[in-house]
Amino acid sequence: MALISPSRRLRRTPFSQGVEAAGVSAYTVYNHMLLPTVFRSVEEDYHHLKSAVQIWDVACERQIELHGPDAARLMQMLTPRDLAVMAVGQCCYVPMVDERGGMLNDPVAVKLAEDRWWISIADSDLLLWVKGIAHAARLDVMVDEPDVSPLAVQGPRADDLMARVFGDAVRAIRFFRFAHFEFQGRDMVIARSGFSKQGGFEIYVPDHELGMPLWHALMEAGRDLDVRAGCPNGIERVEGGLLSYGNDMTRENTPHEAGLGRFCNTARVTGCIGREALLRMDRDGPTRQIRPIAIDSRALPRCDRPWALMDGTRSVGQITSAAQSPDFGCGVAIGMIAHSHWAAGTAVQVETQAGRFPAVVRDGFWI
Amino acid sequence: MALISPSRRLRRTPFSQGVEAAGVSAYTVYNHMLLPTVFRSVEEDYHHLKSAVQIWDVACERQIELHGPDAARLMQMLTPRDLAVMAVGQCCYVPMVDERGGMLNDPVAVKLAEDRWWISIADSDLLLWVKGIAHAARLDVMVDEPDVSPLAVQGPRADDLMARVFGDAVRAIRFFRFAHFEFQGRDMVIARSGFSKQGGFEIYVPDHELGMPLWHALMEAGRDLDVRAGCPNGIERVEGGLLSYGNDMTRENTPHEAGLGRFCNTARVTGCIGREALLRMDRDGPTRQIRPIAIDSRALPRCDRPWALMDGTRSVGQITSAAQSPDFGCGVAIGMIAHSHWAAGTAVQVETQAGRFPAVVRDGFWI
Repeated sequence: MALISPSRRLRRTPFSQGVEAAGVSAYTVYNHMLLPTVFRSVEEDYHHLKSAVQIWDVACERQIELHGPDAARLMQMLTPRDLAVMAVGQCCYVPMVDERGGMLNDPVAVKLAEDRWWISIADSDLLLWVKGIAHAARLDVMVDEPDVSPLAVQGPRADDLMARVFGDAVRAIRFFRFAHFEFQGRDMVIARSGFSKQGGFEIYVPDHELGMPLWHALMEAGRDLDVRAGCPNGIERVEGGLLSYGNDMTRENTPHEAGLGRFCNTARVTGCIGREALLRMDRDGPTRQIRPIAIDSRALPRCDRPWALMDGTRSVGQITSAAQSPDFGCGVAIGMIAHSHWAAGTAVQVETQAGRFPAVVRDGFWI
Repeated sequence: MALISPSRRLRRTPFSQGVEAAGVSAYTVYNHMLLPTVFRSVEEDYHHLKSAVQIWDVACERQIELHGPDAARLMQMLTPRDLAVMAVGQCCYVPMVDERGGMLNDPVAVKLAEDRWWISIADSDLLLWVKGIAHAARLDVMVDEPDVSPLAVQGPRADDLMARVFGDAVRAIRFFRFAHFEFQGRDMVIARSGFSKQGGFEIYVPDHELGMPLWHALMEAGRDLDVRAGCPNGIERVEGGLLSYGNDMTRENTPHEAGLGRFCNTARVTGCIGREALLRMDRDGPTRQIRPIAIDSRALPRCDRPWALMDGTRSVGQITSAAQSPDFGCGVAIGMIAHSHWAAGTAVQVETQAGRFPAVVRDGFWI
């Protein structure tokens, strides 16, 4: 693997000092920001995540804040998911599409107040889309990227660790809900969410100066819980079927292709962008869709490019994320595959840069 | 330095195979795409760039294509630079700002026809801004990212190399103009431009399948010219004062602060976004501005974060790009500095992660 060249453009985070001290060995770049990808090894990090608790620098999940009289109206223009029933204190996974129904991002909406929202984004400058729409549609709303950096606490011991720092009330937060807590006299939004299937929280740190004090407090409190610095894990997230925008779907894909049709209430959301295209997709259904795919492999190369899914000489789709799973003893993968071949049990072949592997479509992820 | 973790989200380019075979040792990420930063060493690459000719994979300079009846109108909404006088065949450096006058990108506009333009972008998803504006303003224009990947040929021997592949007519292309040439029966736009001060061209490769054939043709033709794979050089570009969006200016800065006021014809461009804010800046002038800054150093740490510019205990600005220059025997830097201290000859101190260095404001870059 090659090195990453540091520059100001690849933004450091409020937690970078902690990440470096913990011995980060590799990064990716996400929203123009450094996102750690490996500490000890992907495999060692994976086993630890599944058995203990980790602190993740996910500051790269940048927030877009909408504030003002038209905030709710703008939010509903941005997504086909019906937000009418969404309460303050709730988080919602909201696909966002362009006028042709192509996915622009798959963020989490955080409803702070009736007129104030955060959009916690995946890897695209969604801020520019939201600002462009708000400006050209002359909406009365402030749109900006605030100084808010998520820190995730993930793993089976996350509740115990969090309770030591924030009190037992954190245990009561329900999945995809948030509540307000105090740290060093400052209000922090804490949600039960995160990019793993091991359980845990995301703390929305509202000031970069609070980053390292909170990092140290969590590390200190979790010593006997074997707390470590960690990061979204490339094996665990594929096992769990957590999609990654830019990897598993892009602007070339619809929510229906990404298996996110259930988050589109397009028929009753009359003001959303891309509605006509989405209604057409509701009617016609997708011709290809994301599926879990098991690869018969002992080791896999890096999935650094789409891998063609083949039925003999015929291309029937592509794999966009893959890793060798220690726990399941096979290659675990996320792929987009044609209707003709997406039924569970269908045998296909995967064309990688290291040769072909036999594979089979599954009916569910590894959870 | 840490490693970079490959994934499909960090897009490979039509030239990645050539880059890898040439022994790339480090990358950055730019527009969700891999951009090589080092082959042999930054210093060795630098000397070679200044004396021979290099082929650069700058596919990450993605294009936004505007096509349709409202293309020209949309282009002029996007920038305060007056495009009325721009001819087909011309390239223009066009600052783009949001409604508050904050910079969103500093791309090059390429006028292909009266109703067809490319915007060759720096590192932000400007596509989303342009699409958002076009959609909400109900303009009659197609906005998309085409399969076009620039390949740059840079260095003092660039003309000789290009003439061997495309014929002597390439020598006649003037600075920031383009013309059409043929390669393997396909039309290619070639401009005299590039992110170095050593002269050269950018070839807009219109199909990823043509990437490696063109790469090989150039390498083959330039053997006796000592052609090598190269990349934008972190020393040379700072010496030359070539600004980098995300490093030297961000959305927090105005064009005037970035020293780009001369590209803003705001008074006569009545339809541009951010006009009111820009007119205010025209009137009041900036209170801080980009300057070349010489650092009294023998070696510098990586400029991976803004470095405070100090006058004793008082912060008067920041350095955003810096490198140790072999040819000039000092640290060369780009900084943004307060009006009180921006006069050439002003002595300041630079606060880096490796300690303080004395520095002085210059009146020009090192060219």
